Amino acid sequence: MRFDPSTFRWEGVEPRAYKDDPGSARGMAWRGVSRQTLVRAPFELRYFEIAPGGFSSLEKHAHVQVVVAARGRGRALIGSDVVDLAPMDVVETPPWAPHRWVTVGDAPFGFLCTVEAERDRPQPLSDAEWEALLGDPRKAPFAF
Amino acid sequence: MRFDPSTFRWEGVEPRAYKDDPGSARGMAWRGVSRQTLVRAPFELRYFEIAPGGFSSLEKHAHVQVVVAARGRGRALIGSDVVDLAPMDVVETPPWAPHRWVTVGDAPFGFLCTVEAERDRPQPLSDAEWEALLGDPRKAPFAF
Repeated sequence: MRFDPSTFRWEGVEPRAYKDDPGSARGMAWRGVSRQTLVRAPFELRYFEIAPGGFSSLEKHAHVQVVVAARGRGRALIGSDVVDLAPMDVVETPPWAPHRWVTVGDAPFGFLCTVEAERDRPQPLSDAEWEALLGDPRKAPFAF
Repeated sequence: MRFDPSTFRWEGVEPRAYKDDPGSARGMAWRGVSRQTLVRAPFELRYFEIAPGGFSSLEKHAHVQVVVAARGRGRALIGSDVVDLAPMDVVETPPWAPHRWVTVGDAPFGFLCTVEAERDRPQPLSDAEWEALLGDPRKAPFAF
């Protein structure tokens, strides 16, 4: 698939909304996130892009995600860590680690994300996980 | 894993030789190829870099590879296609498609490559496959 740097699109791939569900459960809200599914195999390779001011759901699941930052700047809560991401940085979300991606600055934050094709559905955080986030000044900004 | 653009390395990842075997079977030779394994999960994410004048083995296998070009320019034989690759272009090698990657120009060609963690070993081409390559002027340059 040919990549067009002027649009940050791959040929023949239509960007879609990140999720059909706008996210009514606690923390499952999201804003300004698009998705391009590049490959479906035993694993899937997707490209996500989050607009300035945007964020993904705060969620957890059993499956591992491998993320390669591609464009702009992002910040993520991943389990007990808060990480800043620049293009080509690689990060893995371990099983059941709560995670949320947000854009930093005025440019879109784009990243490649690989997951198993057969995988469980994302879930909102438990009450205990939510309270733990609120009790930590570094993590509290991700609990909304 | 933090990416360092000055070295094209990820923090804590040691580049290794592409293969231990220098490749004595027909077409299995390679030159100037390094490998960085970024993630091992149900799938593995690796970074390969091929020096100017370098090339990977000409091989086939049952498992699918998903490649995202990251640096420099490359060209690949993939089954019946010859494709030119620039950063962020995506290409998949279908099951049993013979494939070989070569660098184009004076800069290293680097690409991310995802495969299943459990996978079969690469094999050289059959006599019939080799002859078919030699009979096609576009593909013949890859048969060495």
